[in-house]
Amino acid sequence: MTDGIVKGQAAPVELAQVWRGEFLESVHMGHAVVVDASGEVVKAWGDAGAVVLPRSSSKMLQALPLVESGAADAAGLSDEQLALACASHNGARAHVDRVEAWLADLGLGDDDLRCGGHMPKDPDEAKRLTCSGDQFCQVHNNCSGKHAGFLTLSKHLGAGPEYVEIDHPVQKAVRAAFEEVTGEESPGYGIDGCSAPNFACSLTGMARAMARFASADETDARGRAMVRLRNAMVTHPLLVAGEGRACTELMRAMEGRVALKTGAEAFFVAILPEQGLGVALKVLDGGTRGAESAICSILVELGALDPEHPAARQFQRPPLVNCRGIEAARIAPGRVFG
Amino acid sequence: MTDGIVKGQAAPVELAQVWRGEFLESVHMGHAVVVDASGEVVKAWGDAGAVVLPRSSSKMLQALPLVESGAADAAGLSDEQLALACASHNGARAHVDRVEAWLADLGLGDDDLRCGGHMPKDPDEAKRLTCSGDQFCQVHNNCSGKHAGFLTLSKHLGAGPEYVEIDHPVQKAVRAAFEEVTGEESPGYGIDGCSAPNFACSLTGMARAMARFASADETDARGRAMVRLRNAMVTHPLLVAGEGRACTELMRAMEGRVALKTGAEAFFVAILPEQGLGVALKVLDGGTRGAESAICSILVELGALDPEHPAARQFQRPPLVNCRGIEAARIAPGRVFG
Repeated sequence: MTDGIVKGQAAPVELAQVWRGEFLESVHMGHAVVVDASGEVVKAWGDAGAVVLPRSSSKMLQALPLVESGAADAAGLSDEQLALACASHNGARAHVDRVEAWLADLGLGDDDLRCGGHMPKDPDEAKRLTCSGDQFCQVHNNCSGKHAGFLTLSKHLGAGPEYVEIDHPVQKAVRAAFEEVTGEESPGYGIDGCSAPNFACSLTGMARAMARFASADETDARGRAMVRLRNAMVTHPLLVAGEGRACTELMRAMEGRVALKTGAEAFFVAILPEQGLGVALKVLDGGTRGAESAICSILVELGALDPEHPAARQFQRPPLVNCRGIEAARIAPGRVFG
Repeated sequence: MTDGIVKGQAAPVELAQVWRGEFLESVHMGHAVVVDASGEVVKAWGDAGAVVLPRSSSKMLQALPLVESGAADAAGLSDEQLALACASHNGARAHVDRVEAWLADLGLGDDDLRCGGHMPKDPDEAKRLTCSGDQFCQVHNNCSGKHAGFLTLSKHLGAGPEYVEIDHPVQKAVRAAFEEVTGEESPGYGIDGCSAPNFACSLTGMARAMARFASADETDARGRAMVRLRNAMVTHPLLVAGEGRACTELMRAMEGRVALKTGAEAFFVAILPEQGLGVALKVLDGGTRGAESAICSILVELGALDPEHPAARQFQRPPLVNCRGIEAARIAPGRVFG
């Protein structure tokens, strides 16, 4: 049993606060770390060595074998499709239609996915499904782009259909890339919401991986894959999440200068190519609002995000408006910031 | 500014864990306390003196003036209506129809409420509203029963329509009852999601109030009001929350022996009349799943809840089943328990 998130070298710190009137009502504790192009920790809050499951913040690492292997080029994948491979999308038609077309291009369909389905977050598509009585499909799963990428790689490798099994060639390739880029042997994995293995690493390992994406050049296949994936994300922020979502709105706010990716249970990573920096953070309690506020606080501290941009206000320190439109509470940066 | 939840006498403790495979993925930290009939702390986890906003866990205190004043009897309120006065309900027709009838009995309507409206949690009613295009009403607000109680008291007092204002006779009566029963002068209040003032107190003050409910006898108006409210809750658990909700299912599991009430931002209280005990807990991060698991752990430790009852399993240590039906993760009691 690995309880690295709470038994590390340093205690967790307060990454975000929730104020109601003059009362500090709730707090989000956690760990965060910034790593530079040389792989060194340049700033840490809490325990940079905490063992974590990065969940969907791993998606760029999970997409590396797809691009490096030549599978993406062989299938003629566009940057839109690579953005979807890195996405936790809302299941809006913009996402679902593209994944359906991608599967059709592969000669495959919804039944070939192994992610399972769930009601999409996108309100229009959710309403359409609810009121028509139509069942959601696996393409509605927020991870369906990642899975279309897995299927693309699996086909390229001539491997079998059960591509989320831990010993399938796709997952072996993912694990190898994950360990090389984090610079660590993974202590193991958990099963993600979409049934794919999710490999564990230290928080520093995850930030190191993001710093490698940030400082990648195109002198080898890995560097070219990293540059292509990070560019796909910042070029198509809507495809990475959805309207109103933190990843989409904050990438838009930073106008292509930073790639961002959230993960379930309050994970967040950032890739800052201009500074050659990678960021990773985990809010201990899994509260998304805390992770969204904290990634903003760190991006502001690194000079990458204007704290007065509407998206920064919306995710770093959103007002919590009640049922009569009264601003009854507010999220604020944790006291370790600013 | 009052940051009592994190700067108290004792550090917060781990009240619940989230495991994914062999990895401790997330934790919920917080404070909890058990108080006996004499008002003494018999058990504490973390900081029993933490200053908190009990949110909807205050509803039984907010309903005391309604009953004590004679307003409830003058209006002929039933135990069902008193359960609704203490409820954070799902906005199912079972709740909404009863609140609408209550308002009509008062000669009032939806527009007289000051809670605002929100889409109800009840899936059938939410689907009906979404697909018909009907707008939700204020009666759909999870607090509409409390507000119907406020309107009943306000009418009885001959007071004005703005019953959520801090200096309105209804809120003055609530504050007086709150301070008397918690045994503390409140340091202030926040505005709740339903726009009513929510008074602050120490966690011990809240548990003391619950212990007074637990040990109340019917020798005076307050005691009679306390017994009547706690009995109304355990007799009508469905009206206090809704199908599948923790308060409802756990009160059903304990077959009338314990009254329970959750509050927003991960508050929970329990009234144990057989033992004369009151419980209050706050999970620091506001994560409801943590508070639900922790109240179960405490009720199990007090011998009030069978840990093998399906409802105990469902809320203390629920499996987190993913999109393909795989039990990918699990909530577990914090290491301070058993």
